[in-house]
Amino acid sequence: MPHSDLYWALPDGISEALPDEAEALEQLRRQLLDLYATWGYRLVMPPLVEFMESLRTGHGTHLDVQTFKLTDQLSGRMMGVRADMTPQIARIDAHKLKTEQPNRLCYIGSVLRTRSFHRDGSRSPLQVGAELFGHAGLDSDAEVISLLLETLALCHVPNVVLDIGHVGIFRTLAQLAGMSAQQEAAFYDMLGRKALPEIDAWLAQANLPTNISTYLGQLPRLNGGMTVLDEAESLFAAAPAALRTALGYLRTLTERISAQFPTCTLHIDLAELSGYDYHTGIVYGIYTPGLGREVARGGRYDGIGEAFGRTRPATGFSTDLRTLAKFALPKCISTAPAAIFAPAVQDAALEQTIHGLRQQQQRVIRALSGQTHDAAALGCTQQLVQRDGQWNVEAV
Amino acid sequence: MPHSDLYWALPDGISEALPDEAEALEQLRRQLLDLYATWGYRLVMPPLVEFMESLRTGHGTHLDVQTFKLTDQLSGRMMGVRADMTPQIARIDAHKLKTEQPNRLCYIGSVLRTRSFHRDGSRSPLQVGAELFGHAGLDSDAEVISLLLETLALCHVPNVVLDIGHVGIFRTLAQLAGMSAQQEAAFYDMLGRKALPEIDAWLAQANLPTNISTYLGQLPRLNGGMTVLDEAESLFAAAPAALRTALGYLRTLTERISAQFPTCTLHIDLAELSGYDYHTGIVYGIYTPGLGREVARGGRYDGIGEAFGRTRPATGFSTDLRTLAKFALPKCISTAPAAIFAPAVQDAALEQTIHGLRQQQQRVIRALSGQTHDAAALGCTQQLVQRDGQWNVEAV
Repeated sequence: MPHSDLYWALPDGISEALPDEAEALEQLRRQLLDLYATWGYRLVMPPLVEFMESLRTGHGTHLDVQTFKLTDQLSGRMMGVRADMTPQIARIDAHKLKTEQPNRLCYIGSVLRTRSFHRDGSRSPLQVGAELFGHAGLDSDAEVISLLLETLALCHVPNVVLDIGHVGIFRTLAQLAGMSAQQEAAFYDMLGRKALPEIDAWLAQANLPTNISTYLGQLPRLNGGMTVLDEAESLFAAAPAALRTALGYLRTLTERISAQFPTCTLHIDLAELSGYDYHTGIVYGIYTPGLGREVARGGRYDGIGEAFGRTRPATGFSTDLRTLAKFALPKCISTAPAAIFAPAVQDAALEQTIHGLRQQQQRVIRALSGQTHDAAALGCTQQLVQRDGQWNVEAV
Repeated sequence: MPHSDLYWALPDGISEALPDEAEALEQLRRQLLDLYATWGYRLVMPPLVEFMESLRTGHGTHLDVQTFKLTDQLSGRMMGVRADMTPQIARIDAHKLKTEQPNRLCYIGSVLRTRSFHRDGSRSPLQVGAELFGHAGLDSDAEVISLLLETLALCHVPNVVLDIGHVGIFRTLAQLAGMSAQQEAAFYDMLGRKALPEIDAWLAQANLPTNISTYLGQLPRLNGGMTVLDEAESLFAAAPAALRTALGYLRTLTERISAQFPTCTLHIDLAELSGYDYHTGIVYGIYTPGLGREVARGGRYDGIGEAFGRTRPATGFSTDLRTLAKFALPKCISTAPAAIFAPAVQDAALEQTIHGLRQQQQRVIRALSGQTHDAAALGCTQQLVQRDGQWNVEAV
């Protein structure tokens, strides 16, 4: 069936960009990388494939099942196509850019996933992100979130909601409750679904100390505006220090972000735990009304470099260039400029004129002998015409 | 072995770019895409993976064995990671950008190959190229070669040699000799290796008409400067028209290129047949002394869109951004500009000053509380200092 769909349909969730979209993505790519450069974030280009041992590092099974595996004919070992660039950046920080100073890195590139993270979503996002290694604390978390919010502002993402939590709170409670890894995973799953009756039933039979049981039961209920922090603080007033420290951290950070980005809506969610298997501190997602999935996500993941032989604090975000482009277009992306049509005649003066125009970044499209050209169909509004031996640009 | 090579070594032939190289590649990428835009070549971004039926189209087994295969969990069908973007661009021309006008398309992206095309070479080049669809003839071949030579000039590739042949010559001779597909493949292989004794022995036992045998025997000997065309013309004086037409085409084309690019050395090679399985007309490689492999390659491949339901003439070239960067650096790529160091203090006036500097494309790196920062190690030659309530940029 040479002319059937078989030959040209793309796999589900795999997309390509035709000229208008591709040029818009290219413009946006440049604007974002230029923004990151002004904040001191240096570009790295991690490889498309790596050995599975590297790609898997610091991540749980979630990413592993998302990764397409390939057998390397040269080594006989298993490679994977990157499904997320974050572990690659951590490997680069740990092994290739050894310094005691902080490393600020950014990246952009296609990733590939066996299934979409979101229903009907892409399996090959154009992932773009920034990571700050080597500093544990407010300043680095605040810097990375600020850079993300600047990214969204540049792309004209409207009504930004920052949904933020801290995995340290649940992690501490799970430990205090003496949960096994299995129990922790089951509870994590219930929290993610905000399955209140299930959680209450689970706690009713768990026989935990009353205060711990209360804390765990309140966790999925502690979400909303900044007042949630007041509620949580009074609830955790007598709780172990680790819980109060995490809460305090969240308050200082969100207050700082709020002051700097007054138009950003902050949503506190103590059961927001996406990426729980590798995040260690704050964790957040960005939402905007009308988009049925998150725009971006990020958080702190100290220690990801440990398997690479170097533990460094790390905080970062990632997003998808195609998602951003939906908002950026047409506000900050200009369409292809009109072109100048040039005849096919062989003439040294014409060659020179064309060369000069191109050097000035003008787009010149050359006729090809033997074809009837439609200058307008080629996007040309002007043409080169010879008058008195001179080649002039005139309207078509 | 958590700290062993296992965890961070990259597979052979797979490389990554650290900041200095990555930023150079990004600059060069922009310069090339901007050049292609001025020639009317529009950017497309084909997908990282496609179904094997699409990727295989118009190509022989050569590319098939170079392609990493993946099973698509959603469809159960076989996908491949692109090993060459050219067939993808042909699919896009045939199916997504239907027009009777010529389509000029360019692209850039990582490809992945099971083995390197060249000994010790890369298995994941950053392929960049341009294709012109919808015109059969000199003007389009000349335009694409000119654009390639402009690309090489922009990248400061020295002493460029254009090694050019025409697959129509061997194709016609193989047909006249009544070769089976197997014989043609065997002869093609001997030609590629310029295995003169083998070729002579093969012809001695082939019992072909004398003139055809002579023509085939001379083919691997017909390579050198432009005078080779004179030799070939006198050798083929009484040969069938198809041979003389192909030779005439090669002469007109090379003379035009020579006139326009006098510093480019032309090397005629009638046994130059790389990509023979899909090329249909001229075929060429670019060489530069000291680089043990080609810099770029291209040719005409009319009919590649046939399997996609639309036969269009096509001509194009492709090269590798990393190879080009070797020459472009340091001549046309600037290194990261020095940065300005800013203290960690929370101060509205400081925030505003930093914001303003970044808006002017200045790179500002912020201190992070609690760390001893070494401004110089962070690449900062200047710093923000407060004097009389004003934040000023001063030398470190």
